[in-house]
Amino acid sequence: MSVARATVAEAIGTALLLAIVVGSGIMGEKLAAGNTAVALLANSIATGTGLYVLITVFGPISGAHFNPVVSCVCAWRKTLNARACGSYILAQVVGAFVGVLAAHAMFGLPLLQVSAHMRHTPGEGLGEIIATFGLVLVILLTVQYRREAVPIVVACFITSAYWFTASTSFAKSVPLFLGGQIIGGIAAVWLVRWLIVRTATE
Amino acid sequence: MSVARATVAEAIGTALLLAIVVGSGIMGEKLAAGNTAVALLANSIATGTGLYVLITVFGPISGAHFNPVVSCVCAWRKTLNARACGSYILAQVVGAFVGVLAAHAMFGLPLLQVSAHMRHTPGEGLGEIIATFGLVLVILLTVQYRREAVPIVVACFITSAYWFTASTSFAKSVPLFLGGQIIGGIAAVWLVRWLIVRTATE
Amino acid sequence: MSVARATVAEAIGTALLLAIVVGSGIMGEKLAAGNTAVALLANSIATGTGLYVLITVFGPISGAHFNPVVSCVCAWRKTLNARACGSYILAQVVGAFVGVLAAHAMFGLPLLQVSAHMRHTPGEGLGEIIATFGLVLVILLTVQYRREAVPIVVACFITSAYWFTASTSFAKSVPLFLGGQIIGGIAAVWLVRWLIVRTATE
Amino acid sequence: MSVARATVAEAIGTALLLAIVVGSGIMGEKLAAGNTAVALLANSIATGTGLYVLITVFGPISGAHFNPVVSCVCAWRKTLNARACGSYILAQVVGAFVGVLAAHAMFGLPLLQVSAHMRHTPGEGLGEIIATFGLVLVILLTVQYRREAVPIVVACFITSAYWFTASTSFAKSVPLFLGGQIIGGIAAVWLVRWLIVRTATE
Repeated sequence: MSVARATVAEAIGTALLLAIVVGSGIMGEKLAAGNTAVALLANSIATGTGLYVLITVFGPISGAHFNPVVSCVCAWRKTLNARACGSYILAQVVGAFVGVLAAHAMFGLPLLQVSAHMRHTPGEGLGEIIATFGLVLVILLTVQYRREAVPIVVACFITSAYWFTASTSFAKSVPLFLGGQIIGGIAAVWLVRWLIVRTATE
Repeated sequence: MSVARATVAEAIGTALLLAIVVGSGIMGEKLAAGNTAVALLANSIATGTGLYVLITVFGPISGAHFNPVVSCVCAWRKTLNARACGSYILAQVVGAFVGVLAAHAMFGLPLLQVSAHMRHTPGEGLGEIIATFGLVLVILLTVQYRREAVPIVVACFITSAYWFTASTSFAKSVPLFLGGQIIGGIAAVWLVRWLIVRTATE
Repeated sequence: MSVARATVAEAIGTALLLAIVVGSGIMGEKLAAGNTAVALLANSIATGTGLYVLITVFGPISGAHFNPVVSCVCAWRKTLNARACGSYILAQVVGAFVGVLAAHAMFGLPLLQVSAHMRHTPGEGLGEIIATFGLVLVILLTVQYRREAVPIVVACFITSAYWFTASTSFAKSVPLFLGGQIIGGIAAVWLVRWLIVRTATE
Repeated sequence: MSVARATVAEAIGTALLLAIVVGSGIMGEKLAAGNTAVALLANSIATGTGLYVLITVFGPISGAHFNPVVSCVCAWRKTLNARACGSYILAQVVGAFVGVLAAHAMFGLPLLQVSAHMRHTPGEGLGEIIATFGLVLVILLTVQYRREAVPIVVACFITSAYWFTASTSFAKSVPLFLGGQIIGGIAAVWLVRWLIVRTATE
C-alpha cells in the first residue's frame, strides 16, 4: 500500500471528522438554545454516524486511524512502520486543523478561536484514561475477533463515550491529557496481549 | 435491466424520500414548539432511517440515486449511459415534486409553498461544496471497497450532514447551489480516481 | 413448520410489540412534560429497536407479521395458506389486546381506556395509504432482494413512518382506516408484481 | 477456553458497562436540567451503543453475560458449568461495584451513594418480569437462529426496555426484584424449550 496515498487519506479523513465533530457541535449549540443535553445528543449522533462512514471508506486505504494514539499503538504492535507512523501523525494534525477551520468557516465564525472550556479536574483525567483505555481495547479486540465490524464498533464506542465521560476521545485534548492517554493506551495494549497470548499458548 | 422499470423506481423512490424529508420536517417543527434542535434531530433520524430503507429496496432495480448529482457522476464514470441519465433526472424531478405535494397534503398544508428559508451566505456555499464532495466521495469509495454497505453508509452520511453543514444535501438546493455541487462533485471524482488508480498501477 | 408454534409466536411477538409501542408512548409523555417532539422521538426509537429485535427472533418461527395487513398480503401471494392466515390474525388481535393491557398495568393505569385521539382528517387518511403502501412495498422488495435485511429494514421504515405520516402503521387504526390500508396494500402488491415480473420475463 | 481469562473479561466488561450506564445517567441528568425525557434518551442511546460494543468484543472470550440471570440460565441449560457460573457471578458483582465507583469518580461525586429511587409498585414488579422474560427469550432465540446478531439484538432490546418498562434490566435491581427476575427467566427458558423442541421432534 502506498504511504503517500494512505497519508492523504488520513489527512482528508481527519479533516472531515473534525469538521463533523466541531460543525455539529456548533449547530447543536446554536439550535438548542441552552438545552445542552439536546445539543450533546445531536453532537454524539452526528459524530457516531459520520465516524462510521469515514472508517468504512478510508479503512481499506489507510486503516482510518484519525488519532495519534491509534497510530502509536499500531507502531508499537508492529502493524505500522515507524516512518509511516510519523507521516500519519503529521497528516492527522494538519487534517484536524483544516477541519476545524472549515467548520468555523461554514458557520461564519472567526476561523481561529481559543477554547474557553479548560478541562482540568481529576475526574476528567480519570475519564480520559478510561476513554483511551476503552477505545484501544475495543479496537484491538475487534480487529482480532470480528475485523469487518471495526467501523460500527468504534462509532458506537465514541457515541457512548460522549456521554459516560467528560472526554470526547479526540485529538484536541492531546496537549493537556497526554498523560491520561498514555496510561490508558498502555494498559489496554497490555491487557489485550495477556488476553490473547493466553489463548494461543493454552 | 429495463430502463422503464428503473426510471419508475427512481420516481417512486425520490417521491417517498421527499415525502419523508419534508413530512418529518413539518411534523418535527409542529411538535417541537420552537425547540428547533429537537425538530432537526427528528428530521435527521427520520431521513436517515428512511433513506437506508429506500436505497436497500430500490438499489437492485435502479441504483437508487434519487439525486441528479449522483446520476451525473455515474454517467461521467460510464456506469450509466447518457440516455438513462436523462430519464433518471426527469424521474427525480417529477418524483421530488410529487413527494413534496404528498407531504403537504398529509399535514393539511397548502400544496404549493415558497420556502422562506433562502440560503445565501458564503459559509453555506462552502457547506454545499463539502456536503456534495463528501457524498460523492463516500458513495464511490463504498462501491469500490464494500458495495453491500452502500445503503447504511449513505444514510449515516446524510444523517451526519444535517448537522455538520447547513446544507441538507438534497435536490431542493440545486438551482441556487448548482455551482457548489459541481465543484464538490468534480473534486470527489478526481480524488477517488487518483486514490484508486494509484493502487492499480503500483 | 408447526402452525400451533407459529401462531403462539405471532401472539407473543404482537403482545411484546404493543407493550413496547404503548409502554414507551406512556413513558415518553410522562417524562417529556409537554415536549411532545421528545416524547415521539423516544417512542419512535424504542419502537424501532424493539421491532428489529422481535422480527429477528420470531421471523424464523412465524415470519413475524404482527399485523393483519402483512398476513393478508402473504395469503394473497400464496406464501401463507388461508387457514394459517386466519389463525395468525386471531393471534395478532389477542396478542395486541394483552400487550396493551400489560403496558397499562406496568405504568399503573386503568387497564381499559378509550383513546381520545381520533384521527379523521383527509390528510391522515392519505398518510395511512402511504404508510401501508410503503410498508408492504418495502417488505416485498426486501424479501426478494435481500431477505436477511428484513428486520432492520422494517424497523427503520416504521421509525421513519412515525415522523413522516401521522399514522403509526399499526393495528390499532384498523377499524377506522381499513379502507386506507386496503388501498395502500393492493397498490404495493400490484407495483411489486409489475416491477419483478418484468424482470423475470425480459 | 480459560476460565481465568473469561472471568477477567466478565469483570472488566461489567465494570465498563456499569460505568456507561451510571456515567451517562449522571451526564444526562446534569445537562438536561429537569427535562428527564431527554436525559433518558441520552442514557438509553449511550447504553445501547456501549452494550453493543462490549458484547461484540468480550463475547468471543467469555460470552459477555454481564448479568447473573444470564449466567444462571446458561448454567441451567448446560452451556456453562456450575463452577464457571460461580466465578462469573462473583466477577460481575465486583465489576459492577468498580464500574459504579469509576462513574462517580469521573463526575466528582461521592463514591458511595444510596439510591433514592426505590422501586416497589406492583406495576414495576410486572415490568421486571416482562423485561427479564424478554431479555432471556431474545438471547436464547438469537443464539439459536442468528448467533452473529446477538450483540446488536441485545443492545436494541435494552435500549427499548429503558422506555417500555420502568426497569433497566440490570443487576442493580437484583436484591428487591429477584422474584420478578426468577419468574421472567424461568418462563422464557420454558417457552424457548417448547418452541424449539417442538421443531426438532416434528
